[in-house]
Amino acid sequence: MTTDLAIARQARKLPIPEIAARLGLTPEDILPYGHDKAKITRQALAALEGRPMGHLVLVTAINPTPAGEGKTTTTVGLGDALNRVGKRATICIREASLGPNFGMKGGAAGGGRAQIVPMEEMNLHFTGDFHAITAAHNLLAAMIDNHLYWGNALGIDSRRITWRRVMDMNDRALRDTVVGLGGPSNGFVRQSGFDITVASEVMAILCLATGLDDLQARLGRIVIGYTADRQPVTARDLGADGAMTVLLKEALQPNLVQTLENNPALVHGGPFANIAHGCNSVIATVAALRMSDYVVTEAGFGADLGAEKFLDIKCRMAGLRPAAAVLVATIRALKMNGGVEKADLAAANPGAVRRGCANLGRHIENLRGFGLPVVVALNHFEGDSDDEIAAVQGFCTEHGVKAVLARHWAEGGAGAEDLAREVVAMAEAGRADFHTLYPDAMPLWQKIETVCTRIYRASHAEAAPGIRQQLEAWEAAGHGAMPVCIAKTQYSFTTDPARRGAPEGHVIPVREVRLNVGAGFVVAICGEIMTMPGLPRHPAAETIRLDADGQIEGLF
Amino acid sequence: MTTDLAIARQARKLPIPEIAARLGLTPEDILPYGHDKAKITRQALAALEGRPMGHLVLVTAINPTPAGEGKTTTTVGLGDALNRVGKRATICIREASLGPNFGMKGGAAGGGRAQIVPMEEMNLHFTGDFHAITAAHNLLAAMIDNHLYWGNALGIDSRRITWRRVMDMNDRALRDTVVGLGGPSNGFVRQSGFDITVASEVMAILCLATGLDDLQARLGRIVIGYTADRQPVTARDLGADGAMTVLLKEALQPNLVQTLENNPALVHGGPFANIAHGCNSVIATVAALRMSDYVVTEAGFGADLGAEKFLDIKCRMAGLRPAAAVLVATIRALKMNGGVEKADLAAANPGAVRRGCANLGRHIENLRGFGLPVVVALNHFEGDSDDEIAAVQGFCTEHGVKAVLARHWAEGGAGAEDLAREVVAMAEAGRADFHTLYPDAMPLWQKIETVCTRIYRASHAEAAPGIRQQLEAWEAAGHGAMPVCIAKTQYSFTTDPARRGAPEGHVIPVREVRLNVGAGFVVAICGEIMTMPGLPRHPAAETIRLDADGQIEGLF
Repeated sequence: MTTDLAIARQARKLPIPEIAARLGLTPEDILPYGHDKAKITRQALAALEGRPMGHLVLVTAINPTPAGEGKTTTTVGLGDALNRVGKRATICIREASLGPNFGMKGGAAGGGRAQIVPMEEMNLHFTGDFHAITAAHNLLAAMIDNHLYWGNALGIDSRRITWRRVMDMNDRALRDTVVGLGGPSNGFVRQSGFDITVASEVMAILCLATGLDDLQARLGRIVIGYTADRQPVTARDLGADGAMTVLLKEALQPNLVQTLENNPALVHGGPFANIAHGCNSVIATVAALRMSDYVVTEAGFGADLGAEKFLDIKCRMAGLRPAAAVLVATIRALKMNGGVEKADLAAANPGAVRRGCANLGRHIENLRGFGLPVVVALNHFEGDSDDEIAAVQGFCTEHGVKAVLARHWAEGGAGAEDLAREVVAMAEAGRADFHTLYPDAMPLWQKIETVCTRIYRASHAEAAPGIRQQLEAWEAAGHGAMPVCIAKTQYSFTTDPARRGAPEGHVIPVREVRLNVGAGFVVAICGEIMTMPGLPRHPAAETIRLDADGQIEGLF
Repeated sequence: MTTDLAIARQARKLPIPEIAARLGLTPEDILPYGHDKAKITRQALAALEGRPMGHLVLVTAINPTPAGEGKTTTTVGLGDALNRVGKRATICIREASLGPNFGMKGGAAGGGRAQIVPMEEMNLHFTGDFHAITAAHNLLAAMIDNHLYWGNALGIDSRRITWRRVMDMNDRALRDTVVGLGGPSNGFVRQSGFDITVASEVMAILCLATGLDDLQARLGRIVIGYTADRQPVTARDLGADGAMTVLLKEALQPNLVQTLENNPALVHGGPFANIAHGCNSVIATVAALRMSDYVVTEAGFGADLGAEKFLDIKCRMAGLRPAAAVLVATIRALKMNGGVEKADLAAANPGAVRRGCANLGRHIENLRGFGLPVVVALNHFEGDSDDEIAAVQGFCTEHGVKAVLARHWAEGGAGAEDLAREVVAMAEAGRADFHTLYPDAMPLWQKIETVCTRIYRASHAEAAPGIRQQLEAWEAAGHGAMPVCIAKTQYSFTTDPARRGAPEGHVIPVREVRLNVGAGFVVAICGEIMTMPGLPRHPAAETIRLDADGQIEGLF
């Protein structure tokens, strides 16, 4: 069997200046990082301003299952296929977090013949963006404790500091810590902790900022905690926003790499898809749109969480208007949504596929609710039977959408040309009439309820009175126009990860709300959300090593 | 007044492939990081094996004072000057730590017309080496707590874990922490803390490793703590060495940049100069020696600490044989060593200069004790009077060494040509007969005493019986052949930073000893050594920002 890694290593990569040239960029427009990675310079980005934008295509998916859906693989395959059918298409995806790769194997960028390379670097340090975010986040943390140490002129209540530290590592022992021990010269003792870097508000900010000025303004608005009389204290109050911006100056420039078929891919930013919006950077997407006929991008998790945030947070803030949505499903994942266990997936079961299509249908309706034309990409696996495929196609026909069989995993872009042609047809027919789910002016609690009832199909959302009072207080303080970002399990429309399919009438309990003024959204936490993972009993790190040729073993 | 930063920004940098070409390297031999930084590939380094080595010149200094000596500036100026007098010379210096730049302004690479560029990047993320070291260090820490969490099969005594975490940030609140709070799912509660990244043993290891295999072997030997019956537990026992090596694969490749005069400089690694050996990497120095007639490098602090460690640790381990030592002094610093306060430095005072020369003379004797020919580089400042200069030259003549006036700060390499010619004369006459201060076979305590009495001119070293027993136990465990690394104030030959000049007959108290099996030395701590700095009342971070042109303000 040929693994993703083996295929990636056989890639015939072009020198990165040649990939840049396909976007109309000169060697001076990029900052190379080795011979196969580059950043697009701030100056080159500025020169793109005012150019017309290509069509933006969102790739999203049914609710994830252990069977795998292949959303990134489809994003890459579709991008390659669009180039094959004569369109200048660029792929925009997120960067990978380094830490989790040392826990479980994984982390590839696509799979099979639909991958982005260099795969290993992209899963390790890449161009250092996440390290820069870690440094900027932790500089602010150091400045908070330093402010307390030197007399606390701002009157920060050390019990009400909400800004923690971050590390790009799975390290459960850092979730809850006490800092400042050891006596007067080490500061004041207080309880705090670490999140993983992708959970940092700085990550979300970097991915939503439109430029250096906007980046600094957003960083300055970060609320790090409160004074004894409950007044917010910001990063700007501490004078940290300028230095944080300096640390992020390089990281704000998007990274250019390539697919196995030598098409351009911008891989930039990677916020959590639960407590944050889970999309690659606005800067990368906008730059790609200005240099391409088509930009294929993806959102985190399934369409209920990922697409909703892409549309209601990223597209709202950046003024983006997607032309079409591609909804990825697999026969295997539909079977699991139809009640089949993972161990039984090998057996053909058209009935279960048909039942699982309820999940697919719900996402189709939801995406249409945003005014987007939808095509279903049926990501083909070898064991899929004709009857099962026919079941999906029948279901989709009944619902007025096409289900296109896509074989990019096995065949690369050539396997997704039908899908590409369908996307082009939808986009060029101008069928999209995009609108967000709710207006800015809607009260925050009503926004939460709208997502819960219209997208998750809950009967209602519920929260303790304190939470609704908190939302009202934020509205009074001028933050009411923000979109909401709901942190919930990705496995179900409900808050119970085991409830697959298309449940409705459930209740969504809102446990906690958080104000991310810098990122510009209010987070509503529904259920347990882990912001610092741990390592498993036998972490991948134990077997990751260099082989005799200096190549990495055990990472994938 | 033209600042270092203004001069650096006016630099007419050559594209980095052109600098590489001066070393005989092709564009494929380097990995560019932008257009003015690159790493030399592992493959290119391997191709250098067996080539003859050029002359290695050590730049060191009298004991540092607040007046400034200009050791790095002289290293750069001498490198430029050697190129001007017809030698192919390469400069090898350390990388800067990011964190401290947000405390105090500073951190340039040289000064005046003797600088290495790009100065800003070198003081921020540069090529990400320190971030990689941080990640590798903290992966090991995460694996330790993870091992405890999953049953502690190795029987680690959680009270005897010596491996802390690191961050490249000045953050005093992290010096002493408690981790693992929050209940069973977060692990076991224990006390720990953070050091700054440059204090990591991983940093020292990276700088002493001769290649990837040696790197992994050294990482594997790191002792992270002890079992209940006091048996050491290593990184290899935890299976962490392979993954740490993978994280450091890119960082092990030396960084190529250039001087203002477009001469090559390798800037690679930066261990602390107290608890570690304070030199740039062996890999960079060896590579530079194989590509150059002359390599000019520097050691940390004054010659008592820095040169001794360079010679007894780095040169011993790597089999390097320096050809000459350049001892940097300034009139101002000699005046301070002669008892003048900083406020009074402007007034000419040949008598104080003469008194301060005692410090210079002591270092000359010490360097000669290693079998090295010595030249004094008198780093010229505008206010230096002729009488003061004559005082130094007279002193040096009496002691049989030349004192060469060097004006590289104002004039670049042209100002240090006399110095370069003297260095060439010493090196080509083959006057060096280098030997380390003590043999490998000497017992550890005797090694400590030898450095204290022969270099610091103490009457003796003293330590509690437990410390000497500890050293004997390490000898019994097979670690007796290691060199010692003494952590002591850099301001004095004594442990009292206020005692300038050339004191003798004092006592050096050894407070603690540490075993760095991976780095391969025993650290003897004499006095308070800070391994995690704090920020000042008004950290530089408060004024660091981008100006309207996107250039960094406030960093220098």
